[in-house]
Amino acid sequence: MIRWQDAYKVVEAMFPLYVALILGYGSVKWWKIFTPEQCGAINRLVCFFTLPIFTFEFTAHVDPFLWNLPFIGADVISKVIIVIVLAFWAKCSPKGSYCWSITSFSLCTLTNSLVVGVPLMKAMYGPMAVDLVVQSSVVQAIIWLTILLFVLEFRRTGLGVTSNASNGDQGKDLEEDVVNSSDRPSFWSLMKVVWLKLAMNPNSYAVYIGIIWALIANRWHLEMPSILEGSILIMSKAGTGTAMFSMGVFMAMQEKTIACGARLTVFGMVLRFIAGPAAMAIGAIAAGLHGDVLRVAIIQAALPQSITSFIFAKEYGLHAEVLSTAVIFGMLVSLPVLIAYYILLDFIH
Amino acid sequence: MIRWQDAYKVVEAMFPLYVALILGYGSVKWWKIFTPEQCGAINRLVCFFTLPIFTFEFTAHVDPFLWNLPFIGADVISKVIIVIVLAFWAKCSPKGSYCWSITSFSLCTLTNSLVVGVPLMKAMYGPMAVDLVVQSSVVQAIIWLTILLFVLEFRRTGLGVTSNASNGDQGKDLEEDVVNSSDRPSFWSLMKVVWLKLAMNPNSYAVYIGIIWALIANRWHLEMPSILEGSILIMSKAGTGTAMFSMGVFMAMQEKTIACGARLTVFGMVLRFIAGPAAMAIGAIAAGLHGDVLRVAIIQAALPQSITSFIFAKEYGLHAEVLSTAVIFGMLVSLPVLIAYYILLDFIH
Repeated sequence: MIRWQDAYKVVEAMFPLYVALILGYGSVKWWKIFTPEQCGAINRLVCFFTLPIFTFEFTAHVDPFLWNLPFIGADVISKVIIVIVLAFWAKCSPKGSYCWSITSFSLCTLTNSLVVGVPLMKAMYGPMAVDLVVQSSVVQAIIWLTILLFVLEFRRTGLGVTSNASNGDQGKDLEEDVVNSSDRPSFWSLMKVVWLKLAMNPNSYAVYIGIIWALIANRWHLEMPSILEGSILIMSKAGTGTAMFSMGVFMAMQEKTIACGARLTVFGMVLRFIAGPAAMAIGAIAAGLHGDVLRVAIIQAALPQSITSFIFAKEYGLHAEVLSTAVIFGMLVSLPVLIAYYILLDFIH
Repeated sequence: MIRWQDAYKVVEAMFPLYVALILGYGSVKWWKIFTPEQCGAINRLVCFFTLPIFTFEFTAHVDPFLWNLPFIGADVISKVIIVIVLAFWAKCSPKGSYCWSITSFSLCTLTNSLVVGVPLMKAMYGPMAVDLVVQSSVVQAIIWLTILLFVLEFRRTGLGVTSNASNGDQGKDLEEDVVNSSDRPSFWSLMKVVWLKLAMNPNSYAVYIGIIWALIANRWHLEMPSILEGSILIMSKAGTGTAMFSMGVFMAMQEKTIACGARLTVFGMVLRFIAGPAAMAIGAIAAGLHGDVLRVAIIQAALPQSITSFIFAKEYGLHAEVLSTAVIFGMLVSLPVLIAYYILLDFIH
């Protein structure tokens, strides 16, 4: 049975995140400490330094040879279920569309695993759960974000053709069509762009370098020299605080907390906090998870929306306001939602 | 005997500080991640949030009832010695001046105790030394910075009178002299300005609130609720990294690393790394310190220059370039200097 103390421990773990968030929000909205241009600097500090180093720190310390494969299997199954449902909906429903399928996939699957997930999981189920949530964050960064970038890149190239075809001059259209079809993106040319994007994303290469180090270190039983460890820790310790602070700054810079209207907000919240965990529950049961691992799998699927998914949405101009709302509003409502899941999942035996 | 491993432990503790410094420097100088205006944001993030909360975190956890009074006595004696020497020099030497006395006082006495001192002392002499360095940082913030502000404020008001007197119109001068002398700053009117300045300095009130909390908590054996502790830690953990990063940004924004010419740089370094520790050695021996406490007292007097002393120098337009050089160049040379002190002091028995 979960007692009040257990639920309070979760509040205790999450509350500091909100404090950092509020400081960031207040520094712009109430105390006017940063000008709009300066807000960009906070974001860059986080994107280029504290967050990638924070991500690296966690990734480099997992042991990939001891990964929980059923747990990762459950993750894969749940994503496949979501993709099938979305593909079916895109084909068969009159409202279905490729663009909304991409956004729905983001909303269902991509979570803020490290910044929010790590302290939360530690409070709920201890170090074992932290290890699992780091595993799922690595898989997310290496597999799911790559796939998301790929479909976004595919859409962008595809969109180029469509918008050209709807333009005035017929003869020019025909000509361009020919150019476009010889030019039509092959899998590898798209992958090249995707890899380039990932190589420009500090957080992505933090994961790649981290996992490569983890593989080498665990294969040959190496330890990072503590002078290097300390050099990483000095910035990574700033990760959680500055990331939440920066999210607060970002919130304060939005004209409205709910940028996309109430209907789409509810849509986003349902996908994030109900559809995602539901798909994960199916995947987890299919993969034979039980006990705390099953609980961790479901709860980590109910974490707030990944910030990276918003950054990509903005970059590709695809429903950025829906994802910004999911990030902001999702963060605000996640505490009660996650505690509710925590209590409910305790009834599973 | 200090072995190589001991000296290496010091390098290990200091190296990460330089890494954060270099990241900050490189982000402006090499990678152009921040515009000049954006650099201000990093500075503000540190000045208003991470550094005060970092200072508070340390100050709130000292036990003022268990303070090492001889250690603080040594600190006071050493400062008094310095003040007497400087006053004597200002009166008797043809080169002596009030302004240079103030700057020399800053250079001799004010150190970066927390950001640099804490990791260094921990590596050298363990937790006992951290406790001592925090004590001296509290005394510095409450007593020595207040006195520094007072003399700077006194000079500013005094300077107003002098520069008026040298102006053209004799009759007007006489009139102004009368106004000024009735207006001449009394101790309390100056103190009011000083307190106002301190109240506007987030780091100052972090120390005041911290020490008040420490007094209350230790008097009535209270413990900070861990939800509050966590909320402070989330930002204070970012303190060291962001402070060093911000110093790197500051370095990169200077046109020259050595802003004040070689002669004044040497002057500053001699005061900081030789005169200051020498005065402290006299004070420490006079106060009867011995063993590791004596060593800690001397080494903490040889820490790099306090950043606050530069901020005040800039604000009052008094030798800011000398102090900026002392901060930057002092940080760069401090590692070998501190290791040399560490090895030399080991010979004292």
